[in-house]
Formats: sequence, structure tokens, C-alpha cells
Amino acid sequence: MRPKAVAVIGASQRAPASGTTREPRGNRVIRNLRNFGYSGRIVAVNPKYSEVMDCPCYPDLASIPEPPDCVVLAVPNRHVPDLLESAVAAGVRAGVVFAAGFAEIGIEGKQRQARLEALSKERNFLICGPNCYGVLNVFGKAPLFASPIPPGFLAGPVALVSQSGGLSTTIANALMLNRHVGLSHIVSCGNQAGVTVEEYLNYFVEDENTGVVAAFVEGFKQPAKLMAVAQKAMAHNKPLIILKGGRSEVSQRAAATHSGSLAGAAEVVDAAFRQGGIVQVRSLNELIDTVSLFSCETFVKRHNGGRRIGVLSGSGGECTLVSDAAMNVGLEVPELSDDSKSRLPEILPDFGNLNNPLDGTGAMYDDDKIFPRLLQALINDANIDIVTVNLEANDPRPKELKSGNRFSLAITNAAVAANKPMAIFSSVVGGPVDPDILLPLRTAGVPLMEGAECAMSALRHLADYHLFRKHWESRGQKEATLVSSHPKLPAGILPAEAAFRLLASFGIPVVPTLLTRNAEEAVTAAKRIGFPVALKIESTQIGHKSDVGGVALGLSSSAEVRDAFGRIRERVTAKLPAAEIAGVVVQRMIPEGIEMILGIKHDALFGPVVVCGFGGVLVELLKDVALGIPPISRQQAHSLLTGLRGWPLLTGLRGKPPADVDALCDAIVRVSQLAVSLGDQLLALDINPLVVHAATHGVVAADALVQIA
Amino acid sequence: MRPKAVAVIGASQRAPASGTTREPRGNRVIRNLRNFGYSGRIVAVNPKYSEVMDCPCYPDLASIPEPPDCVVLAVPNRHVPDLLESAVAAGVRAGVVFAAGFAEIGIEGKQRQARLEALSKERNFLICGPNCYGVLNVFGKAPLFASPIPPGFLAGPVALVSQSGGLSTTIANALMLNRHVGLSHIVSCGNQAGVTVEEYLNYFVEDENTGVVAAFVEGFKQPAKLMAVAQKAMAHNKPLIILKGGRSEVSQRAAATHSGSLAGAAEVVDAAFRQGGIVQVRSLNELIDTVSLFSCETFVKRHNGGRRIGVLSGSGGECTLVSDAAMNVGLEVPELSDDSKSRLPEILPDFGNLNNPLDGTGAMYDDDKIFPRLLQALINDANIDIVTVNLEANDPRPKELKSGNRFSLAITNAAVAANKPMAIFSSVVGGPVDPDILLPLRTAGVPLMEGAECAMSALRHLADYHLFRKHWESRGQKEATLVSSHPKLPAGILPAEAAFRLLASFGIPVVPTLLTRNAEEAVTAAKRIGFPVALKIESTQIGHKSDVGGVALGLSSSAEVRDAFGRIRERVTAKLPAAEIAGVVVQRMIPEGIEMILGIKHDALFGPVVVCGFGGVLVELLKDVALGIPPISRQQAHSLLTGLRGWPLLTGLRGKPPADVDALCDAIVRVSQLAVSLGDQLLALDINPLVVHAATHGVVAADALVQIA
Repeated sequence: MRPKAVAVIGASQRAPASGTTREPRGNRVIRNLRNFGYSGRIVAVNPKYSEVMDCPCYPDLASIPEPPDCVVLAVPNRHVPDLLESAVAAGVRAGVVFAAGFAEIGIEGKQRQARLEALSKERNFLICGPNCYGVLNVFGKAPLFASPIPPGFLAGPVALVSQSGGLSTTIANALMLNRHVGLSHIVSCGNQAGVTVEEYLNYFVEDENTGVVAAFVEGFKQPAKLMAVAQKAMAHNKPLIILKGGRSEVSQRAAATHSGSLAGAAEVVDAAFRQGGIVQVRSLNELIDTVSLFSCETFVKRHNGGRRIGVLSGSGGECTLVSDAAMNVGLEVPELSDDSKSRLPEILPDFGNLNNPLDGTGAMYDDDKIFPRLLQALINDANIDIVTVNLEANDPRPKELKSGNRFSLAITNAAVAANKPMAIFSSVVGGPVDPDILLPLRTAGVPLMEGAECAMSALRHLADYHLFRKHWESRGQKEATLVSSHPKLPAGILPAEAAFRLLASFGIPVVPTLLTRNAEEAVTAAKRIGFPVALKIESTQIGHKSDVGGVALGLSSSAEVRDAFGRIRERVTAKLPAAEIAGVVVQRMIPEGIEMILGIKHDALFGPVVVCGFGGVLVELLKDVALGIPPISRQQAHSLLTGLRGWPLLTGLRGKPPADVDALCDAIVRVSQLAVSLGDQLLALDINPLVVHAATHGVVAADALVQIA
Repeated sequence: MRPKAVAVIGASQRAPASGTTREPRGNRVIRNLRNFGYSGRIVAVNPKYSEVMDCPCYPDLASIPEPPDCVVLAVPNRHVPDLLESAVAAGVRAGVVFAAGFAEIGIEGKQRQARLEALSKERNFLICGPNCYGVLNVFGKAPLFASPIPPGFLAGPVALVSQSGGLSTTIANALMLNRHVGLSHIVSCGNQAGVTVEEYLNYFVEDENTGVVAAFVEGFKQPAKLMAVAQKAMAHNKPLIILKGGRSEVSQRAAATHSGSLAGAAEVVDAAFRQGGIVQVRSLNELIDTVSLFSCETFVKRHNGGRRIGVLSGSGGECTLVSDAAMNVGLEVPELSDDSKSRLPEILPDFGNLNNPLDGTGAMYDDDKIFPRLLQALINDANIDIVTVNLEANDPRPKELKSGNRFSLAITNAAVAANKPMAIFSSVVGGPVDPDILLPLRTAGVPLMEGAECAMSALRHLADYHLFRKHWESRGQKEATLVSSHPKLPAGILPAEAAFRLLASFGIPVVPTLLTRNAEEAVTAAKRIGFPVALKIESTQIGHKSDVGGVALGLSSSAEVRDAFGRIRERVTAKLPAAEIAGVVVQRMIPEGIEMILGIKHDALFGPVVVCGFGGVLVELLKDVALGIPPISRQQAHSLLTGLRGWPLLTGLRGKPPADVDALCDAIVRVSQLAVSLGDQLLALDINPLVVHAATHGVVAADALVQIA
């Protein structure tokens, strides 16, 4: 990030003049370094010349008298592995590789990338890329960057990581030019053959020039590190704002093509973000506006975590639309306080509207006294946490027809004196943002957002982040979840008894269950367990036991048990003559309760993931399940449950008693500990159903399937 | 809309110079008329002057020698009613009222508006407003419009109706300046005291200069007319694209304040739009991009209704994001055809990517031959219906650093020769759109949209519209649903027998039900109906009958019926001694099936609305119901059902047999006919449950509550 000397491979004297697009990337890097005021040494490597763009030029890396820290490779992909190996040999510590044509294309590319990965792992050589635009350290004045950098680059607190090179500049330019938000770094890390997204995020969380970390990510490589970085980001109070692409099958195909990334199931990524307090945005514009908001220090400082939005607009229509947008994301637009309602008519006698959103109507355009008074009324109103003003800062009309400019000075003045967070938003997104409006307001701590939808989403993210931090701080240090590694279990599907024993050993309540081999054993077992009992065929080869007549319920005497035993064996043997039958298990009948599913599935990227949801149509039809990355705390378990659509079923729907949510949370926590303890040897665990009884009456696992690797 | 002479009340000689914002609105209207080349006569009304802005000025309307067609009132609200009454007296036929302060504020305002409404109804006087910017007829060159009109106004096929004045110009400017989309009219109709939104929509559907009608609406006034306009729009193939504000409680409060509109339940409006083929958008930007697409004649003509999108981008990251956006709205991004996959390597030997989205990578910037070839490959690909190109037409950087311009010529050239619809979209929304890119492409039939999300939404709307039209055309003329008006029923809740009779008279299958007054009558009834039967207490005062012990099920003998009769009477009398009991009904027990709810509720705006959904958690927890405006055709009934989350339950989930969807559709159609026939006398109807049996086994109403006004 802060090289003392850089060698550029791929710069040439044949370079055409600046500004044309065909300039070789190597030359562009040298130009960028010069324009940015890089103070280190720049050398070029090219056997044809002795100097390039006034830099000393050497035939190869070995010939450079004092080896540089870093080498920038602006050469075709086929030369990259050899050159990097020679760089390592010459004592270079890091390299930036622009070229595409690695893991994102066929076998040849994957082999090329493997050589880079080997250098990174075995020789501890730092690689940015390949298939990227490189690294731009703004405060270190070191742009090892493939794309032209416009003059007047705005330095500031935002570090931006984007796997995609093109989007890195698109996002950066929009932040700087449309939002007046400055950057501390831009990193386009492409295929992550060396340094990963997670490592860059970690670096920026620790970086003193960075206050907010924004990222566009297609695929993570080190999920455990991501969760650790999220923790560290909380400790440093540096929000991570991430746009994660690749949610659909097609886009995962695209991402794999683009950067050779494994995307991981979208729902698992969502769960990880939620659990780590990472702000997840869903579009480039939401990213830009959320970063615009989070990076506005004055706004964030003044924000008390509240969700009650006040709106002032000159358009009644926008009042309606912003109210819809606020409702959609779960923000409140409360009525004005009685105090405001009684005072407003005093200061504005002829003004009829006393609502929030506050519609300034045509009157506010006709009389300059009205706008500042309405604005101040919102600032003073005790019902309102955040004051927003709808202002056309991006009006594409000729300057003399714009109305926004007339009000921006009044907002700036009010903002300087206010102790409440203030923001402005336009109605339509698009058009040139007027710097005469944008800059003074941003300087006064009033960020601009475009469009009610993005503005409300960004404000919601900030309130959510605030709430997450509050919980995070209140629970102090991370809950101790020291879980020792579990001894190796036999591979395959565990027999029912063993599965239940495993659950019980982690403190998960299970239904008393005994394996029996004949009718008399079953009767004895039933007596030990206590009537009524259920009998179930025991075979690791049979999935849906009731489908083959392998289940008998509600047996309340020895005779019934004896009968049922024979019947089950007969029916199953008739239907599945080849199935290996271990016997029949006898279980206590469980009183009715809410049937849920609780289990662990294995995500290709994140490994074990805890899954919890309701049985029946909710899970079958709506896939209404909550996911959590183990270990899960009680608080996290609780918020998993409240996030389910079926949550009201647990609190007592239509007069039914509330369920034992405490015991359910406990079971989730313990299942997550089981996942940690068993680690990779656990392929899948499925408690179905977990019966949840009324409050204080506990939960019990009625059936469990455990699959060991 | 096309006045021969206009009188402007509220223009003054005291007007400051053009361009300042304090110019009186009356003067602004005269200026707008002049600038727009209005060919009719303009007179001013003001007792102080004999001429204003070179127009003859009269002391009052009566003094004008030849009365104008139309009067424009740019005066404070308190003068409006008197002036309009004098206008009617003077023979004026129409008026535009800018002033606010009518139904949207307190009682005084409502009274003022009532006088305007009376003039409109009783004297047939056309009023636009109050609380609006007025009417701008572009081709008629008649801008009776309160807002300054920029020079270079772009005429075109889009008529825009916006209740909000401010948003009318915001939307119009964004269309003209950011999308190069021309307008035929702008109407800001405010409180609709005279002409309603529906009437303007109707006018534009018939207008020869208009091809696409766009609207921002807060509240409808004439829902029946809206449905008729939607039919007419289909017949003329003029899409109605509407942004409906006021979905939330707060925004309905805002809308009521803003334009005194009754918003109607958001879900009912959604249902009406869906049923009428009205394109519903959810944000201003979605409105702008959808209008941009629908108004691009070449694109629409070339579009075959397909949903398979091809994408070409220079950014791999955007390939991922646009794929996510396409998936979110239900568009396909198919793989390239085998033909393309085999040909591409021939024309581009070193190019590795053969995917859709097609990532041009850095190569496309370095080699000018690549982009046109990739584009042509998408155009030629048989798997792709619509070709989209990701192009930064709104790059805020200095011109020499922009990349979009390099590719726009290639797109224009390809578009001229192509027979496939082509569109461009930017990654980020915002920033100045480069006219050098926008104009030539739009002229070549390639519309611009900003942001993958809006672009994909707009394309989905077009595909949906296409599909709706196909269905609409195939069913030919509207299905005959002549329903005669039902004789008046007694007010209150109908007794069970009467309710079932009513349903049966409309052909809705009901469970055989007989009211009995004593145990012996019940036994006789049970024998007539056939065992097993159910007994239910009959009282219009008891809601949940089973909660008070008023239900006995599965009675299979006379003795059981006799017993149950006594038990029910005793239990209910014990629990509700004061309830009036009409007797006990005997019903045939219905075999198990899928329990649904089917009914009619009364919407404040739309009147009767058919409601259909699944019983149990789906309706209780998820409010998973479909709404339809009666009368409903079989096809509409079917699409109501497929829109339910629970729809897979009807097609046979997890091996269960598919349900009798035909009979269910039939029941929905008949309930909708019942709603039409009973009209306003029906307050509510609730069939719960309607039991749906397996295919060909029909449906049956097991219980019904009918409430008559």
C-alpha cells in the first residue's frame, strides 16, 4: 500500500499522447503516480529502452540496482507467472497484476492463477489481482492503478474495495462528483489470487485514514476472516457497507466467469452480514447513498439512533412518495408534536398545513420567509429524530429555472446551528448535481441523497447499524462459547439412538428413545419409557418412515406395542425387502406443540450453517427459514426467530398460549455449538420436528437425522 | 385543451423581469403562451390596467367583448369561487385554478371546493385544479401552465398527468432532458374539483398525438371510469403507466392533505391495475425509465414479447449485478446459443468469454474491433429476445476520460440494421446524461435507461404488457357477464339457510343445510341429508360458533344427532344466556379438502372487491389473499389464484393430488357476479371455508356469512 519504490513492467516509449484511450496501462500507471505526487522511486522494465517517460528503464527485474518493494505488471497474462517468479527472486515483496485471463476462463487460465496462488502462499508474496485495476492509496499518494485518474481527486474517509475494476471507478466517481464524498483508498482486487477481499477489509478497518469501508464483492474466499473483520470493525466503529453481487444462478455464473469466485448461497451471505453487523445494500445507488450518509461525520454524530423522520418538501406529491418509501423500509414519519402544531400558526398565520411530511406548497416559493421557519419547526420538533429536506439539487433545467438553489443557503444556515441530523434528498435520481448546492451543504454536515427510496434505505441502514452497535456494546465482550472439538464419529447416517445421544450430550432435549430388536424388547422398553409410546422402524436406508408403514403412534398398552411391532416389520419388509433393518425404536409420545425444524446444513463457502424454521407450509411453500453462522449467541438466536414470517405463531396467535421461546433459543445455541464442535465431520443435521411446547414447558427433538463425513 | 381565447386573471404591470421567481403566475402564463407560440387571443383581467404585457386588459370578465373559452385564475383562493361563478355567467366554458387552500386544508377550504364542484356538476363548467399547475397542450401550443417552461421543449407522444404540480415538471424535465422523450401534454390536476384524473386519462387515450399515457396519481375519484379507460386504452393499444402514491397510512394522510384525495386501499388499487392491464410502477425513476422504453416506437415494434435478455458490458461486475436485477423481476438471462458459442471464437480468436451477460473485459477498450462483433453476436443469437448494452452515458468525469462515447456509434450503426430491440443502460443512476450519446441512439430506436434495476423493471413491464394484450386480444370482446340487479334483501346478517340459498342461486355449490328447531326436526333433517352430519348453532349474534361449544361434527346416527342437539343448546345457553338462538342447522359432513376463503369486502373507493385465499396460517399470518374487481372472468380468476403464495398447494404439493382449480375459478366468477348483482346492498360476504376437493370433484361452501346493508 505504501511502496518506497515501484517497478512498472509494460510501459513503452511507443506510447501515444496522454488522454487517448490506447495509452498502454504501464504508461498510465507512471502518469498516475506522477500526477498524484508519488514521492517514491519509479523505474520501468523493458529490454528495448533505457528510459521511459523520464524514468530509468532496465531490461529485467534482476538488473535493477536496488530492488523495488512492488512491481506493477501491465503485460499480457501469459507473461505474468514467470515475471512474478522473477520478482520474488529479485527480492520484490508485492505485485499488482492487471491482466485478465486467469481463473475466470478455462483450464489454461486456472493453471496460470494456480502459479500465482502458490507464490502468494509459499513465498508470502503479496498479489493484487489478477484481472483488476490495482490499488490506489490516496493519502500515501500511491496510485498503482490502471484507470486514468481525473484531476481534483477528492481525499476523504471512505475506503472502497471492488472486485470489479470498472465498477471501482464508477462508484468512486459517483461518490466524489455526485456526492462530494472523499476516498482514502480504491482497491480493485479482481480474482484475489493473493490478497483477498477480507484482507483488504481488515487492512482498512485498521487504517487510520479510513472511517467507512465500502465494498462491491462478488465472492468471498475466507468467510471465517470476514466474520472476524466484522467484529473488529464493530470494535473500531468503522461501518462495513457491502454490495454483494451474485445472488442468482445466472449472476453466480457471471461472477464465476468474471473473477473465478465461488459466490456461496445468497441466503447464507445475508445471514452472515446480519450476524456481523455488516450493512448490506442492494444496488449501486443504495451503496452510494448509504456511503454518503455514513461518511458524513456531523450527521452520524448528531444521530441518536432514532427512526422518526421529518420531511420538508415544496411538492405535495413527493410528501406522499417519501412516506411510502419510509414505510417500505420500516421508518416512521410521525405526526408533528402538539407544540409544533400550536406554534406554527403563530409564526406562519396563513399557512394551513401542519403535517409531517410538511408540504411547503407554492407558498414557500412565493415567500422567502416561509421555508426557514418550516425548517426550524421540524428541527425543534420533539417527535422528530432526523430532518430531511426534499430539494432538487439535480434539476437538469437551465440554471435560472432551478428552485433548489434558493433554499440551500437557508438549510446550510440552519444546519450550522442545529443539533439534529439533517439531510437532503432529490425526488428523481439523475441529472447533474449542482455543486453550488452540494458542496456547502456537505461541508455543513448535510449529506445529499438522490431519490426518496435510496434516501430512506440509507437512513434505515444507519438506524439499524446504531441498534446493532448498542446491542453489541451492551453484551460486552463476545459471549464465551468455548467448545471443544468432538471426537471422530463413524461415517454415514447415525442410528437414531446415537443421533439422540449426540444431541443430548450437547444439552438438546430429546424424546426418550430405545432401540429394540423384537416385540418383547419393545414391550420392556415401552414400560421403561412409560405409555403411550410410538414405534418407528430403524434403518439408515429409509428416509420417510411413515411412507412405508414404518411408524405406529399412540400405543398405550403392552399388547398394542406387541401388535404394532409385528405389523411394522411386515409392512416394511413387504415394501422394501432389501432394506437393512436395525430394529424398531420405541419413543415416548410427545404432547402436541408447535412443530419446527432445526438443523445444520453445509454451505459450499461458509461451511456449517444453522437452519431454523416452522414445519408445514411455511417451510415447504415459503422456505421461511432463518440461517445463522455458528457459534450463535442467545440474542442472535432470538433475532433469528423474530425474523421468521411465522414468528407470531410462537408469541401466541389467535388466543393460543405463547411458546417456550427461551428453550427454543437455547436449543439453537446448543445446535450451533454442536456444529462448531463437530466441524467438518458433520455433513448435515436435521431435527424434524423439534416440538416447542407452551412457555416454560420446553422443547423436545422428536426425530433427528445426523450425517457424518 | 384547445382554447381559442384565454383570459388571465392575476397578471399585473407590477411584474418584475422575466426569470425571477417572484413573477406573478398570471404573467408567467402569458409569457408561457407567447413563448410557446399560442395563436389564440390572450386578454388580461385586472381593474387597475388597460393593458398588461401588451394584452388588452379589462376590469372584469363581463366587460370582455367576446367571452373567452377559458379563464386562468392566478389569484388567491378566497377570490376563486366568485370569479368562477362570474366566468360561468359571462359564458366561459372552462377554468384553470392554480391556488391551493381548498379541500386539502380545513373546513373553510372544503366549503370553497364545494362551490367549485357545484359549478362543475350543475353548470357543466370544466375546472382544472384547484391546487395545481394547470394544463399544457404541446401540439395545440396552449400552455395554461403556472411553472416556467424552458426553451427547447420537446414535443412527442407522451401525455403526462400528475396531481402534483411540482412532480409534473420534475417528471417532464427528466423525460425530456435525461431521456430525450417528448411530450404531447402535461396536466397537473391537483384536487380534481372539476375534471378528474380518470377523465384526463380518457382524453389522452383518445388523443391522436398521444401514444403513451403516464401518470402520477394520489387518489382516484371514479374507479368505474378508470376500469373503462383501461379497457379503451387496450383497444387503442395506448399503455397507461401509473405511479400510484399513498400506499401507507402516513402517505394517505399526506395525500389527503395534499390534494384532498381518498386513496383507497393499496391492495385494491394493485388488483384493479393488474386486472385492467395498467402498468404500475413503484418509483419516479421506474416511471421515467418505463415511459422511456414504452415511448420508443422502434423498440416496441421490434419487441416480440420475449423475456430473454442479452447483455453486453465492459464491466464484469455489472454483468453480475444486472443478472441479479433481471432475476429479481423475473426476466431470463439465458446462455448463448451453441451457434454463437461456436462462431465467436472464429471472429474473436483470443476472446475467452462466451457467456451472457457477455463481458467485453478490458479487451473491448483496447481493441475497437471487439465491441461491434460482440454486439452483433448478441443481435444474431437465437436465444436472445432483447439486446441491452451497459454504457456509461452519465459518466460525471471530464469528457476525455469517458468511455461511453466510443461505443455509442457502434450501437447506433448496429441498431439501424438490427431487427431485434436494443436498449442501453448505465450502471449507476445519476450524473449528467451525455446528449452526444443519448440523442443519436434514441433516434436510432435505442432508448436509454439508468441503472440495472430500473432497466430490468421497465423491460419486465413491457413483456407483461405484451402478454396482457395477447390474452386480451385472444379473448376477443369482453366476456358477456350480464348480471341483473338482485331484489333487495333484508338488512343485517342473513340466517345460514338464506345465505346458502343466495349462494346457490348464483350457482355456487353449498353444503346441504337445514335449519331445525328441536332434536326431532334435527333427526329428520339428518336422515334427509344423509349421515354423517354436523350440527351448528344458528344465531346471527354468535361469531365463532365452536368457541361457545356450538358445533358438533361427524354425527353418524339419529341418537348421536339427538344427543348433540341437546348438548349444543345447553352449552351455548350456559355461555351466552342472552343470545337469540334461531335453532340448530344440520349440514352434511364434507370430505376433507383444501380449505380456502372466498368473499367480498367493501372498499371505500372501489366498492365491492372479491377476496380469495387459503385458510390457516397463510391468510392469518401472511395475509396471502388475492383481490379482484367484479365482474371477474374465468381467466382473471385463474390468474388471481396463480398469484397466491399458496398456489402450489392447489397444484399438488408433495405428492398430493391436484385440486379442482376449474371449479374454484368458477366459484370466484360466480361470487363476482353475485357482487355485481347485489351492488351496494351487500356489505360483506365471507365463505369460510370453501372446501376445494381433488380435480373434477368440485368445491363446496361449508359456511357463509352474508351481511346486507
